[in-house]
Parts: sequence; structure tokens; C-alpha cells
Amino acid sequence: MYSVTVRGHMMIAHSFKGDVFGPAQRLHGATYVVDVELRSPTLDADGIVVDIGCATDVVHRILDGLSYRNLDDEPEFSGRNTTTEFLARAVFDRVAAAIGRGELGANARAIESAKVTLQESHVASASYESALARR
Amino acid sequence: MYSVTVRGHMMIAHSFKGDVFGPAQRLHGATYVVDVELRSPTLDADGIVVDIGCATDVVHRILDGLSYRNLDDEPEFSGRNTTTEFLARAVFDRVAAAIGRGELGANARAIESAKVTLQESHVASASYESALARR
Amino acid sequence: MYSVTVRGHMMIAHSFKGDVFGPAQRLHGATYVVDVELRSPTLDADGIVVDIGCATDVVHRILDGLSYRNLDDEPEFSGRNTTTEFLARAVFDRVAAAIGRGELGANARAIESAKVTLQESHVASASYESALARR
Amino acid sequence: MYSVTVRGHMMIAHSFKGDVFGPAQRLHGATYVVDVELRSPTLDADGIVVDIGCATDVVHRILDGLSYRNLDDEPEFSGRNTTTEFLARAVFDRVAAAIGRGELGANARAIESAKVTLQESHVASASYESALARR
Amino acid sequence: MYSVTVRGHMMIAHSFKGDVFGPAQRLHGATYVVDVELRSPTLDADGIVVDIGCATDVVHRILDGLSYRNLDDEPEFSGRNTTTEFLARAVFDRVAAAIGRGELGANARAIESAKVTLQESHVASASYESALARR
Amino acid sequence: MYSVTVRGHMMIAHSFKGDVFGPAQRLHGATYVVDVELRSPTLDADGIVVDIGCATDVVHRILDGLSYRNLDDEPEFSGRNTTTEFLARAVFDRVAAAIGRGELGANARAIESAKVTLQESHVASASYESALARR
Repeated sequence: MYSVTVRGHMMIAHSFKGDVFGPAQRLHGATYVVDVELRSPTLDADGIVVDIGCATDVVHRILDGLSYRNLDDEPEFSGRNTTTEFLARAVFDRVAAAIGRGELGANARAIESAKVTLQESHVASASYESALARR
Repeated sequence: MYSVTVRGHMMIAHSFKGDVFGPAQRLHGATYVVDVELRSPTLDADGIVVDIGCATDVVHRILDGLSYRNLDDEPEFSGRNTTTEFLARAVFDRVAAAIGRGELGANARAIESAKVTLQESHVASASYESALARR
Repeated sequence: MYSVTVRGHMMIAHSFKGDVFGPAQRLHGATYVVDVELRSPTLDADGIVVDIGCATDVVHRILDGLSYRNLDDEPEFSGRNTTTEFLARAVFDRVAAAIGRGELGANARAIESAKVTLQESHVASASYESALARR
Repeated sequence: MYSVTVRGHMMIAHSFKGDVFGPAQRLHGATYVVDVELRSPTLDADGIVVDIGCATDVVHRILDGLSYRNLDDEPEFSGRNTTTEFLARAVFDRVAAAIGRGELGANARAIESAKVTLQESHVASASYESALARR
Repeated sequence: MYSVTVRGHMMIAHSFKGDVFGPAQRLHGATYVVDVELRSPTLDADGIVVDIGCATDVVHRILDGLSYRNLDDEPEFSGRNTTTEFLARAVFDRVAAAIGRGELGANARAIESAKVTLQESHVASASYESALARR
Repeated sequence: MYSVTVRGHMMIAHSFKGDVFGPAQRLHGATYVVDVELRSPTLDADGIVVDIGCATDVVHRILDGLSYRNLDDEPEFSGRNTTTEFLARAVFDRVAAAIGRGELGANARAIESAKVTLQESHVASASYESALARR
């Protein structure tokens, strides 16, 4: 299995509901350094899983759509705790949709699975990985 | 699959028996930077795999129980080479036991597998990963 | 010149006023990974600049006093942009005050200067450094 | 499953053929920081997957055989784009062959699978992983 | 003293002349991860040394002008060994010129000195730092 | 001012005397990731401060002379706490002596100052820097 991983980041504000979160129930924020890994059993005719430049552009555009926001005010996240693991899934879903729309190139159809990891600090991270739906 | 990873470290002395170890047969030591990854197919009602603060506290307590010691003198490791891969398993077993005792919260029962990685330097690391026994 | 550096982090929300900030004028947030470097021309009788454990505790307590907050609501920062460089100075001032109060030990009087660096992402950081006032 | 990972690096020149590569069609170069992960379900009698010193030596020798070269001039890569994912496979094949020749020790026969990751910058990497053929 | 540091990277081919370089006399290449640190004794009215977004854009544009090239073919480097320390200076000079042209904003006039660091691998780097000419 | 920095590591056991050290009074150990920075105002005729390969070899040889040892048993450290800052100085002194003996090349005479940094974990480090005696 081959993989390619590209990195970006986003900076957001949010708060959490639930006693388990302690002081994180207050409005606070985070920088998430985001790694998107794309996996394929084969390389295309150019010798790549996906163009790294193209993948970087798509990931940065997705992260720009989430960054510099208070996620508590985003209708799509209404009533949800936007935890690191939840946001890993949210980024994953956007990457999968972009692949489905062909934004990573026609050969990205060979991508079988993906993993999105968000580092919230030098001592904690979360991820979501899954197979991609057949296209 | 979701995952959460938390980091801590321990500083220990030890020596190894066996020609393969060369100069590491002498008493020496290591800092291990330890990453504990916990994996679950679902998020709980709060939107988490496990509380990162709680997981960090449990991992730090486990590492404090090993740190600032000469492992050659610890009865539980008697007659064993406490290599990086061996210690990855030792930390894994302690984390699994803590989950079993409910120390990471009731919802940590959903954790299916875990991986413990010990970096012994900027150029070498070892890990142990396994499914967790049904609880 | 000797130095000791210890690391901690804080997670905050804030917004900036001024066209230069573009989308960062919106409420957003950041994780700051914070390195505090303490410099001394001499080691004390124990062979240290400062006890690393003690310095870590003091820095974590200072960062806990800033973390999990919306800095826009903190009276002490009223009317100020809490930029990365501004916050590096804010942490520096708290560390200098703690040294002045003897919280890093009597021998910390030998510390001549300090530097505080805040990494806001994998691609940007800011710092503040200065001599410490004579004590 | 246990694993051991060792790190090395290589510095090469190359160019790519294909419009997708944009400016990377010109002769340029890269530093690849290379992590080789070796996985085994068991530890040997010494308590290791493989000797880290020995594995490091083998990996460095393999990377020395590729480094400080213009890969466009290497006959074995003729007509191929030596992309990061392609080179991850090339290193993997050399590591697998070295294991097959017994260069990592007799107990390295227990290694079931391996993964080779090449970081080409702080924001992009590629990998190849596979089971190892029965020996 | 305050500072702001932003990061980018470039990927180049080159060769060196001189016995001291050993195998690096052959055509090879490197990824340089580049940190540009800008230092000022004061913050401007917005509370910044320089806008991080603007500084990042300028540094990326400078690095794009060097990247994806064989530096042996660049007339401006003719007859010179484009070592890591030499290139640190080359980037520094371009940053200083951009500040002089006002590309980092009018307030960047307060920048007193700068440091450019190029990491060529996980185990080696070089830098150039200097005061900036009065403007 | 130009600089070149090379990295190595050492793994040692030791214990400390003094109440301030708490549990570190017990025999324990550490991995130190060591960065040696060499600074010169000028480049030599080859365009370098010092040959990175040569500097790496010298630093590795110095670290090999300290590594895989219990520093409590080393006569030269008798009666001293081998703290991180103390060891930074010990490595500095060995590097300075090697430069004085010409082991880094004749042009290394231009090196004006050096800095040695030891990372003892992902959250703590210490350093020693000084001008080099005229040669």
C-alpha cells in the first residue's frame, strides 16, 4: 500500500458542553496542525498516488473554510461538541467529498482509504480514518 | 475508526544481556517519549473517544511508576532485557489494565485497540499495538 | 552562558482589531506551545541554572492562568491585540515576576535574562527576550 | 504486534516528466528523511524485534547507495518518475532484500511486514508498506 | 527584543567543487526548510513586529524564486558553492531587500536584525544573521 | 554571522545528589539529543563554516566517548552532578578542544563561538554557549 500525506493548519475558537471537559467548557480555542493521508494500492502512470501540490491546495482550501471562526456559531456544528476527534471526521468528510468531485484528479479514484490527524498541541492529537466509498 | 493520542515521558537506567547489544550491555539509560493511542469506532455522547485530560493523567501516572528508576533492580523485570519494544508492551499492559478498571471513564469500554510508541532518540523508536480484551 | 528551557502550552480564543489582520479579525483561537528559556552565567552548588521540575511547575501554573479563556474578555488585555508577540511578552512578565518572588528558588537570582517563544503553528512563532531587572 | 523504526536520510537530484508536476519537471532535488518500520508479532530471546544498531547500519548503507546522485542518470530508474512514493517502494524493496539475505540477523525472519516513509519537507511525505514474502 | 519567525521550504539541485565535499561533489539535491526570524525592539500600533501572513507570503515568493532549479545553472551563483550557509545568506539578502522595498509594510522599518536558518535534514542546518542596514 | 549546526545523541545513566532533585536522586538515565552550533563571521574559500560531514563525525566521536555509561562511575565527573546544563558544558569543552587540535579542519580557526544544546525530553533542554579562545 502506498500513501501520500500533506499538512496544513487551522485556528478556531469553540467551547464544549459536558462536565467531563472541565475548564474547556469555557470559550477557548486551538491551532490544529492537520495531516491528511491518502492511500492507494497502486501508482498511476505518472508514478504518484496523487499530486502533492494539488492535494495540498485542496486541503488548504478545506481548512480555510473552517479557520478563523468560532465553531460555536457555525450552523452545521450546532448542538455538537467540536472536539479534536469530531473535527478529524469533519475534515475527512470534506476531503472524501472533494475526491468524489474529482478535485484531486481523475486518478484519485484509486484512493482506497484516508486518515486525517489533528495535532492540538505537542502532547495531544486525534484522528479519523476510513475506507472511501466506491466511486 | 477514531483515535486519540496523548504523550508523556520517562527517564530510566538499565543494561542489556546479550552480545547483540554491544556497548548497551553496560549500565546506561534513556529518555522515552511515550505516545499512547486509543482507538474506537464510535464517539460517545460528549463527542469523544476518551477525555484527553483524563487519559493524560492516567498515562503520566503509569510513566511515573516506571521513571527515575534503574529497571535492572525492578523485580517485575527480573531476568528480562527491558528493550524499547519490551517497554512499549509493558506500558501497553498498564494502560489496558487502567481501562479495565474504569480509570479512563465508563465510555472507554468502546476502545477497541491501542498502540504505545516509545521514541528513544530522534532516530529510533519502538511500539506495541493490540486489540483490547472484551470487557 | 548556560540556559535551561522548559515547555508548556495554552489554548485560547481571541480576535484582533485592524485591517492588517484580515480574517483574524473574526473571533478565532490558537494553541500556543510555549518555551521559556532561562539564562545564567554560572551554575549553583547543585550544578543547575534552575530546577527543571520547579521551572516546569511555575510555567504550567502561569499558562493555566491564561488558558481556556477568551482573551477578549480579560480586563488586563482590554483594548490590546493579544498577538503572539504580545503574549510572549505577557508570559515573560509573569515569569520574571515569579522569579522575583523567589518561586524558582533562591538561586534563580543568578538568572540574567530570559526568552519566551510561542509557536502558534508548525509554520509561525514569536518571542520576547530581555535581561531581568536586578534583584 | 511489535515494531521498531529507525531513521536515516538521503539527498538526491531528479526531474519529473508529466504536466501534472508543473515546475517539478525541471531538474531539482530533495532531502528525504527516511523512517523504516519493521513489524513482528513476537520478540526474540534477547527481547527485540531486531537490533536497532544493526537495522540503522543496514538502512544507512541502503540510503548511501542512493544519495548524492542525480536519479535521472541511474539506469535502474530509467524512464520512471522517481517520486516520493516510488522511492519509498524502492527503499522498501532494498530493505526486504537485505532481510532476505540475513543482514538484519537470523531472527529478523520473524518480521512480518515493513513500512518505509519518506518526508520530503515539513509539510509532505509518502510511504510504502507491505507484508514481507515468506522466507 | 521581540521576534516573529515564519517558515517555508525550497527543493533544489546542485553540486559542489572541492575535495572537502566528498560525494557531494556529484550532482545531488536538497530540501531546505527555511525559518526567517525578524527582530524588533518594539511592537507597532497593531501590536505586531510584522504581519505573519504578509511575512509568510514574502518568504514563500522569495523561496519560489529559488526552488525547483539546478542552482549550478543560475548565473547569479556562477562559480560559487551553494552550500547551506551560503544559501542562508542568499535568502537573508532577498528578505532584507524586500523589507527595504516596503513589501513587509511600513512598520517593518523597525526591524533591527534578522536570522535565516536552513535545515537540510533532521541532523544538520545552517544560518546567517545580521543587523539590517538603516533605512 | 554564519553558523552550522550538527546533531547526535547519547544515552547515559546517572543519579543526582541534593534534595532539590527529588526522585532524580535515584539512579535513572536519559537520552540527550545534542545540537552543536558553530559560528563564524566569514565563509572559507569553499563557501563553508566547517564541513558538515567532518563536524558530524567529530561530534559523534565525542558523544560515543560519553554514551552507554553510568556517569556516576566516570572519574572525571566524580563528586559532580551531571545535570543537563553541566553536560552541555562538558560537550562544549570537548568540541572546543577538538577544534583546537585541528580536527575540524584548518579553517575552523575562524569559528568565534559555539553553542551546545542537549534536549533531555520533548519538554526540557539545556545549553552552554561561549566564545572560543583565540588559537
